[in-house]
Amino acid sequence: MARRVDHSPDELKVMILDAAEDLVMAGGVSELSARKIAQKIGYAPGTIYNVYTNIDELILILNGKTLERLYDHLSMVRLDGEADIGSANENLEKLLIGYLAFIDENRSLWRLLFDHVPSSEDDLPEWYNQRVLKLLSVIDQVLLPLLSGRGAEERRDVSATLWASLHGIISLADKKKLDVVISRSSHDVCSLLITTFLNGLKDHADFTGKIQ
Amino acid sequence: MARRVDHSPDELKVMILDAAEDLVMAGGVSELSARKIAQKIGYAPGTIYNVYTNIDELILILNGKTLERLYDHLSMVRLDGEADIGSANENLEKLLIGYLAFIDENRSLWRLLFDHVPSSEDDLPEWYNQRVLKLLSVIDQVLLPLLSGRGAEERRDVSATLWASLHGIISLADKKKLDVVISRSSHDVCSLLITTFLNGLKDHADFTGKIQ
Repeated sequence: MARRVDHSPDELKVMILDAAEDLVMAGGVSELSARKIAQKIGYAPGTIYNVYTNIDELILILNGKTLERLYDHLSMVRLDGEADIGSANENLEKLLIGYLAFIDENRSLWRLLFDHVPSSEDDLPEWYNQRVLKLLSVIDQVLLPLLSGRGAEERRDVSATLWASLHGIISLADKKKLDVVISRSSHDVCSLLITTFLNGLKDHADFTGKIQ
Repeated sequence: MARRVDHSPDELKVMILDAAEDLVMAGGVSELSARKIAQKIGYAPGTIYNVYTNIDELILILNGKTLERLYDHLSMVRLDGEADIGSANENLEKLLIGYLAFIDENRSLWRLLFDHVPSSEDDLPEWYNQRVLKLLSVIDQVLLPLLSGRGAEERRDVSATLWASLHGIISLADKKKLDVVISRSSHDVCSLLITTFLNGLKDHADFTGKIQ
């Protein structure tokens, strides 16, 4: 247990957040409790509720931090600037590899990001939504050259659809539910989706022709 | 509490399974405990472990039952027999509507199917895998006319990829994490994926052409 000293509310906020992050990293979401955090920072459990409204608020801020770290991680991926499907495919493949590497290193935090459903029905705060959208903008940028003829809302719909689909594949694999239906890695399944999806963005509206 | 009588192990298995199903339907996964099941059937909690190895085995059998009910539900969807992309699109749209309706009526059981990760590392039993694959065969059938030039394994990969992607979208929506990135319903996002994916199955290997 750390030696107890007096800290300002701002200092406590950071200490509690760091302790929560360490606990999740080390033992998963189930490790996250006011008691364990308090023990780690050398304060009484009640201290946590002096600086955070409840555990949901703490998790939201921790998830916000994970989103920011993920964005920083993906921003470092060097993308190709050509405006064709081949380049978009390569760029998405690079981002996918970066994303999977991030998950490998931060699996418990990544799970917390998606599996935790807050008990309150309140809308997510605007700053949190902005971080999610900033992350999605990484895919937006890659798809932009392929969607130049479409409006901003349609472009966003396309990016979000691709992202949600990739998330689904990775999430099923994480829960060991992908290998029942397919004997390939989550990376390979994501690649197949990316390739097919990008190909499908060409002459999108043409569904009249018979096959073969 | 039901009046306690003597039941055969086979009768107890069914009673326990039904009680577990009722508990999950009524209050979600968190309601599932040996104590609550025992209370419902009027036996001591230990009785459950006379006929099921543990709660994981009970959940596996309950999930198997849900898979079978979902298959029966989707089998009743009337599909169009034409072998073109338009028909495949319509058929997948009908299956999607059927799937979403099933989830609406059986949300807690559907969540149990995907969110529960058994504590044991054992492989799933063969009968369970067969039920999952039987369910996936519904999508296989719809895609078959579009993939006649490909091998069985590749066809299965394509079906599984589409299914996993759709699952991802629906699952994000269920956790209220889809509306942060897209202001459309999970149905609309799934439709967008289906349309784009099917379009992408045409001349799949052509990734050389520049856009526009």
